[in-house]
Amino acid sequence: MQRIVVLAGGIGGARFLRGLTSAAPDADVTVIGNTGDDIHLFGLKVCPDLDTVMYTLGGGIHEEQGWGRADESFAVKEELAAYGVGPEWFGLGDRDFATHIVRTQMLAAGYPLSAVTEALCERWKPGVRLLPMSDDRVETHVMIDDPDGTEGSGARKAVHFQEYWVRLRASVPAHAIIPVGAEQAKPAPGVLEAISAADVILFPPSNPVVSVGTILSVPGIREAVAAADAPVVGLSPIVGDAPVRGMADKVLAAVGVESTASAVARHYGSDLIDGWLVDTVDAARTAEVEAAGIRCRAVPLMMTDVPATAAMAAEALALAEEVRGR
Amino acid sequence: MQRIVVLAGGIGGARFLRGLTSAAPDADVTVIGNTGDDIHLFGLKVCPDLDTVMYTLGGGIHEEQGWGRADESFAVKEELAAYGVGPEWFGLGDRDFATHIVRTQMLAAGYPLSAVTEALCERWKPGVRLLPMSDDRVETHVMIDDPDGTEGSGARKAVHFQEYWVRLRASVPAHAIIPVGAEQAKPAPGVLEAISAADVILFPPSNPVVSVGTILSVPGIREAVAAADAPVVGLSPIVGDAPVRGMADKVLAAVGVESTASAVARHYGSDLIDGWLVDTVDAARTAEVEAAGIRCRAVPLMMTDVPATAAMAAEALALAEEVRGR
Repeated sequence: MQRIVVLAGGIGGARFLRGLTSAAPDADVTVIGNTGDDIHLFGLKVCPDLDTVMYTLGGGIHEEQGWGRADESFAVKEELAAYGVGPEWFGLGDRDFATHIVRTQMLAAGYPLSAVTEALCERWKPGVRLLPMSDDRVETHVMIDDPDGTEGSGARKAVHFQEYWVRLRASVPAHAIIPVGAEQAKPAPGVLEAISAADVILFPPSNPVVSVGTILSVPGIREAVAAADAPVVGLSPIVGDAPVRGMADKVLAAVGVESTASAVARHYGSDLIDGWLVDTVDAARTAEVEAAGIRCRAVPLMMTDVPATAAMAAEALALAEEVRGR
Repeated sequence: MQRIVVLAGGIGGARFLRGLTSAAPDADVTVIGNTGDDIHLFGLKVCPDLDTVMYTLGGGIHEEQGWGRADESFAVKEELAAYGVGPEWFGLGDRDFATHIVRTQMLAAGYPLSAVTEALCERWKPGVRLLPMSDDRVETHVMIDDPDGTEGSGARKAVHFQEYWVRLRASVPAHAIIPVGAEQAKPAPGVLEAISAADVILFPPSNPVVSVGTILSVPGIREAVAAADAPVVGLSPIVGDAPVRGMADKVLAAVGVESTASAVARHYGSDLIDGWLVDTVDAARTAEVEAAGIRCRAVPLMMTDVPATAAMAAEALALAEEVRGR
């Protein structure tokens, strides 16, 4: 059985995984999920990326939205607002709240996040093994101009990634992306073992900075991926010099990377990835990627439906075979 | 302004208070609420009696049911059940969940229950000052036969009051009622001060064992009531030798008290109460109460609507004037 390890963020990672499990139904897939987006809201632990993967693969996702639950209601949120308790900009639905209540209760009882995630997945049966990147708390912060600072003083402040992404809609410049706590974090149980035992490692078209980049910032994970025998293949989240969805260009700018399919590949680098898929509209950029020592193919990369996504996953697996043992 | 202190449980206490605030709209009413029914569910702190008072006086109560919120939905509960997380027998609705989430978050931030209750009441504006009997954790347990014990072994076990009351519907004999933690509990800030400054103290037709009895079990409260200058008047929760609602007879049996309007008055005793109202159907029992040194009147005690309840409250206040200074 082919062992595939995927480093996944939220919506893009989850949709790619649905294609992958369709393209390789018999594969043994381990997902290492980003937890840098995690946030405590109303005293509850919310893990947006893990939940998006779990709900998407488990059939509970709000399809159009890409995150949150289908058939959702918002009575709890309305009531919290009536109590004057915020933030109101983070839209937790009633069904989603239950997940966070169960998680918080289990964490308070002493279970690590990896065990909690496994327990939640017993209900959702996502068909993959979903591991948080770490059981330790890592929280991505974004350095922005301080709106309360004196004009021209250059004062900056760090805000939680969700505040930057959801409340501010990435509308202000991000000067730096800081995965707070990452340096002290340890990979969750099973993470390094899965990477070293993998037959193929994939980077889905997730955000290269705040999703895959955050996972790689946990000491030991980047090193394990670089040292793995398995071929490592990524798919570009940038198509036609713009993010397919989300606002990846904003955070790429913060780390000094251009929003092009080839710049992202070079950002990962040939010490980390062996192969890279760009969209057909970026076919002219394959040479730039190959020049960096990364095998590159141009194929359709729009995840319009499951068959299209499965075809992308199949191309990634094919490229992995092509570069195997290089 | 007349200062009235009421020791209240849940539904009966809350409905009585609505009548009282209607009968005495200008009075300064302090409610000392029972917290022995409090329970931790799903990691959240639930205070059923405080919430019933708050929702009833604040216009948010489910009228027919007498507890919980109007226009309630149950998405969170359904989801928790889908995760296999119980108990399922305690019906928390989505709107109600928000209250418990806010309370739990504030408690975790270090606020005492009295401060949390005050904050929640800022929204509900119940028109009374609602104080928990104590900021310390008190949890009423009920001793029942152990269904897992050997037949005839006499093995017993203690269950949380809510398990006895809600799950078992008081269908098994209660051998003892134990307010766990009461001995170490201190009255909440303001409780003793309100009692000693009161012009009138009322015991509404709440459960004399697990509501008013639990409040009185907090060291200092019974003594303060007994020592108060104010007349103390109670209303019988037993009408025609049966509880008006609920299953008070079951817990009265546990403390060796008959389910009669006069037995409950004698259970409180003349050292605690000065006056007692029984229903007109129990008029024949007034002599038994008076024989115990407690002034007694028979008046209609069915809280069928707010005017009927206001009339009861007015009778209680009138009896208080009658016994004042005795």
